[in-house]
Amino acid sequence: MSIYIDPAVAASLRGFEMPEKLGFGTVMAPVMFRAVCQDGCWSQGELVPYAPLALDPAAKVLHYAQSCFEGMKAYRTQAGGVSLFRPERNAARMAHSAARLCMPPVPEALFMDGVRTVTAYCANLVPATSGESLYLRPFLFGTQADLSVSASTSYEFYVIASPSEAYHAGNMRLWVEREDSRAALGGTGDAKVGGNYAASLRSVARLKERGYDQSLWLNPGNRNTVDELSGMNFFAVINGELHTPALSGSILEGVTRDSLIDLARDMGYTVHERAIDIDELLGQVAEGSCDEAFACGTAAIVSPISLFGDGGREYPLAKAPGPVAERLRQMLLDIQEGRAEDKFGWMHPVEVVSID
Amino acid sequence: MSIYIDPAVAASLRGFEMPEKLGFGTVMAPVMFRAVCQDGCWSQGELVPYAPLALDPAAKVLHYAQSCFEGMKAYRTQAGGVSLFRPERNAARMAHSAARLCMPPVPEALFMDGVRTVTAYCANLVPATSGESLYLRPFLFGTQADLSVSASTSYEFYVIASPSEAYHAGNMRLWVEREDSRAALGGTGDAKVGGNYAASLRSVARLKERGYDQSLWLNPGNRNTVDELSGMNFFAVINGELHTPALSGSILEGVTRDSLIDLARDMGYTVHERAIDIDELLGQVAEGSCDEAFACGTAAIVSPISLFGDGGREYPLAKAPGPVAERLRQMLLDIQEGRAEDKFGWMHPVEVVSID
Ligand SMILES: Cc1ncc(COP(=O)(O)O)c(C=O)c1O
Ligand SMILES: Cc1ncc(COP(=O)(O)O)c(C=O)c1O
Repeated sequence: MSIYIDPAVAASLRGFEMPEKLGFGTVMAPVMFRAVCQDGCWSQGELVPYAPLALDPAAKVLHYAQSCFEGMKAYRTQAGGVSLFRPERNAARMAHSAARLCMPPVPEALFMDGVRTVTAYCANLVPATSGESLYLRPFLFGTQADLSVSASTSYEFYVIASPSEAYHAGNMRLWVEREDSRAALGGTGDAKVGGNYAASLRSVARLKERGYDQSLWLNPGNRNTVDELSGMNFFAVINGELHTPALSGSILEGVTRDSLIDLARDMGYTVHERAIDIDELLGQVAEGSCDEAFACGTAAIVSPISLFGDGGREYPLAKAPGPVAERLRQMLLDIQEGRAEDKFGWMHPVEVVSID
Repeated sequence: MSIYIDPAVAASLRGFEMPEKLGFGTVMAPVMFRAVCQDGCWSQGELVPYAPLALDPAAKVLHYAQSCFEGMKAYRTQAGGVSLFRPERNAARMAHSAARLCMPPVPEALFMDGVRTVTAYCANLVPATSGESLYLRPFLFGTQADLSVSASTSYEFYVIASPSEAYHAGNMRLWVEREDSRAALGGTGDAKVGGNYAASLRSVARLKERGYDQSLWLNPGNRNTVDELSGMNFFAVINGELHTPALSGSILEGVTRDSLIDLARDMGYTVHERAIDIDELLGQVAEGSCDEAFACGTAAIVSPISLFGDGGREYPLAKAPGPVAERLRQMLLDIQEGRAEDKFGWMHPVEVVSID
């Protein structure tokens, strides 16, 4: 299906001024992509100026959190072009998230149209500094005005974009969360849906008071093995080998996690996907066989962990930032920013549309 | 603080035509109450015509489900007036839900202003048929435009209303949900927040295909004791005594549940609040010592359960509808609709505002 480009888009883009300070997810690109779905039928996709949405006060999303989203980035490459990283994985994950909440999937072609069109028109907004990028946020939510607890009959899909710095800079201090959960066993942890993030806020508020940066979530079934962080997956380096939690049903399957597993193996590391017992891991940190740990995600890329706090004790990592995290981060960015060969076929170049 | 009444409210109310068929939560009253909160400071409350909200596409509620709500009713009483049922309990529960998601509480006075003002102006919209009422939906959500996962700095609070029939009529067939969870241990199950309802949709979609009406949720920690239904609490009658799950941390503390416990005791029943093992309960249904079960909630009032389905087996209840449920339902409605003495001081009469 063709995409409708609102004639006002050009003026919006021309009038946009890039602020000095970007931050993460606060500066919004002046255009957005949208499509609506009524009773299972999708409208044409449109690129329109960024503007407030009109939502009925009884819309399902406001009451019953029927919403899911994705996070991905457009990178400026060495050669001057703009590329997306494995966008088909985000399209597939969004379909999975939608199904968990009884929402219609956004068709892969429509999803790709959305992220490609926004990227193509916003190419001038992709920052050129390594580690910075145009963060893309596709999202889908139920709009039917009806207060009964049931799936919406109508939906809206948007792609908005934000020129951004990388999400985390420093070495992260993690708090082992033994009480709160972000998602249930048999819940929505393996889907990228709003409720998981809402449930995580209290833990983060509490740990910040104690001087920590992020919660380390445990499996809600056994409360003993590591799941992930609120917006990143987890890796530990134990005796020089990489260990990451196997997908447990309550872990979001990160595109970065998956890519790092391939990349690390290709670089000669042994990588284990397994259930990681938290007490065993903390013991290994204390005794030194685990000397490095890091988190990864689209927003955070690869972010080193400096210590674990658990109850009254702290477990500092010997190497923070550690050499494995540094090498992986650099190799991943080299591929994403076009300095290294794209041997896995991950990069998806976008043809730029020039305005004026 | 005084309440601002938009001059357009009168025309909206005069122009409203009550449809023949009400249903539940589909017909919306033509006015709504709103207040906004910026950095912890609440604006004046306003009564305005019901109209779409303008929401930034990056608003927290759309991505991270930072939202909570309440459900309560205004009843037309025998004497011709209009009354709310224990509204201060809803105000307190909403403050509890808000805190779980790091949202500022709606001050009790503002909450009461909201539900009272909507009820006062919509008094003509409160149906007169027993069991019908004006369903009120207060809700609160984060509006800050910022894609980082953190609590919003700005919020909007609304009260909308819907003239409604009671939510469930028939005898309900419950499906014992052994796989999915609506909320985690350490999650948000004891708060009335959107994510719990989104997580419940898949179970309901599956069980409807098999001919059931509602999921019976088990405790997500032990997966063996009964919690509640998606929008109602649970009671069983065993050897003539009432049993309801004790508040487990993942159960919403229903105002109706609480009221029925008092009412039943006052009517001479023995009431137990305890952990109810599902297998033991199904055994008691099979052998006949549990001959009646029902669910309760603001929307559903008291709704009898006709059977439990679990895996391949069905456990029909000997009495459906049963006499205990019928007596409790009638007594509760008699109090709410002003036919019986309000001996517990539950009713909160609202002074009606007449338009024109
Ligand atoms: C809960 C959670 N885990 C992991 C990730 C990392 O996934 P990805 O690498 O696809 O960005 C994210 C976010 O993106 C997330 O929200
Ligand atoms: C999950 C859940 N449990 C129980 C109830 C019953 O609570 P109340 O009696 O206050 O309406 C509700 C809804 O109202 C609910 O959403």
